[in-house]
Amino acid sequence: MDKITSTSNAKVKRLVNLKKKRKARDEEKVFLVEGIRMFREVPQNILREIYVSETFYKKERSVVAELLAGAARSSAIEVLSDTVFDYVSDTRTPQGILCIVKQMEYTLETVAGGELPHIVALDHLQDPGNLGTIFRTAEGAGVTGIIMDRECVDIYNPKTIRSTMGSIYRMPFCYARKLSEAVKFLNERGIKTYAAHLEGMCDYDEENYCRPCAFLIGNEGNGLTKEIADLADTYIKIPMKGQVESLNAAIAASVLMFEAARQRRK
Amino acid sequence: MDKITSTSNAKVKRLVNLKKKRKARDEEKVFLVEGIRMFREVPQNILREIYVSETFYKKERSVVAELLAGAARSSAIEVLSDTVFDYVSDTRTPQGILCIVKQMEYTLETVAGGELPHIVALDHLQDPGNLGTIFRTAEGAGVTGIIMDRECVDIYNPKTIRSTMGSIYRMPFCYARKLSEAVKFLNERGIKTYAAHLEGMCDYDEENYCRPCAFLIGNEGNGLTKEIADLADTYIKIPMKGQVESLNAAIAASVLMFEAARQRRK
Repeated sequence: MDKITSTSNAKVKRLVNLKKKRKARDEEKVFLVEGIRMFREVPQNILREIYVSETFYKKERSVVAELLAGAARSSAIEVLSDTVFDYVSDTRTPQGILCIVKQMEYTLETVAGGELPHIVALDHLQDPGNLGTIFRTAEGAGVTGIIMDRECVDIYNPKTIRSTMGSIYRMPFCYARKLSEAVKFLNERGIKTYAAHLEGMCDYDEENYCRPCAFLIGNEGNGLTKEIADLADTYIKIPMKGQVESLNAAIAASVLMFEAARQRRK
Repeated sequence: MDKITSTSNAKVKRLVNLKKKRKARDEEKVFLVEGIRMFREVPQNILREIYVSETFYKKERSVVAELLAGAARSSAIEVLSDTVFDYVSDTRTPQGILCIVKQMEYTLETVAGGELPHIVALDHLQDPGNLGTIFRTAEGAGVTGIIMDRECVDIYNPKTIRSTMGSIYRMPFCYARKLSEAVKFLNERGIKTYAAHLEGMCDYDEENYCRPCAFLIGNEGNGLTKEIADLADTYIKIPMKGQVESLNAAIAASVLMFEAARQRRK
């Protein structure tokens, strides 16, 4: 068995770059997926390369046999010494398997399409964990597409990928060059846009989400930018008790998404 | 101005212990609060000691004057060199103010009391950020008390404190020696207990939460322990689309808490 034992190996440097840099990921149009569970869910047609640690290679014989059978067709497998694997891994206790996957490419038309759109649009969302959690929750709530602006954290950030728990492969999404234009596009398509806003006049649960709808969700610290909020059809608020001023962005999005899901089940 | 310049100073060692160790916090029955916003919300009667960085001391004259006026009554103020402050701080970009606060002490009777209880009980919750977020969201949703078992992460963990955004000061809570006994106590009081469970037969939105109710929420990875789930009056589930098996614990709790809030507003 050949293995890579040096962190100055060119392949290792490339993996570290893909882990750390959005620019590197976007130039190659790929991202990294780590761990056996996330790996198993990768659609075969976008799986590019597989890297395993030496220990994984020796201990997980059945997985490796399965990989080798598949790899002949679609992907290369490379073994890294355990030390080198730890070096390229983004987790504290690496499982020993990581792969390079092709980025998804959906158009705004696809993301906003379908019979009964239920969209989430994210404006300047900053926290990688929040973004991944929103993807996971959105899939569970039956959201049909997610639109982000370029100021949002990268969906292909390794921490975000992990917190999607696999929803990244199934939820249509896109980055809009200008979120304002995407919101106008939704408005023109007859998709009602709701801005989650502290100054909302309507309680969120008094609107009808059985029609095509989109929730506009702002940044963790500052909420929606004025430009985006101004484009919304309606401001809605989640009524709050106590001295709480606002909710975490992922929590607010979840409450709204599951209210729409609840109404659509009736 | 006297200041502490060495990390081997006994007071500094104590602060680091209080930051890192649940045992140290519980022995002294105190916890640390960092940052100007969280500091301002500390109820005066539980504020014990205040530490500021040298830069904070010099730049934030009005805050310091205010502190000194109050401190004569209730708390000591100590200045730490910036290096020492960074050393004791739990954040990457310390704001330069941190204080020692007395722990809250609520009985189970208080936490489960009131006219129309809306309780959340947490079983083996592990993630500090999730716990803090649940406190913050719970206050917003009008939850009247939170019960945790001893296996839950420490509410006084600095990261948890930060993510409560101040709700820690206002939300009644307690750690039950045995969560099973606390759940039995709720049942005896006529508070209906709902286990959030993947095997739930009832959709969560088909129950009536206008009566006294408690949501039992399990661990991030494994859900509720069997012992606790078995004690619940009813298993409820959040119906899920796509291939999502479960939600993040804080998200699941939030969806349930805000459904109760929604019903109680009608």
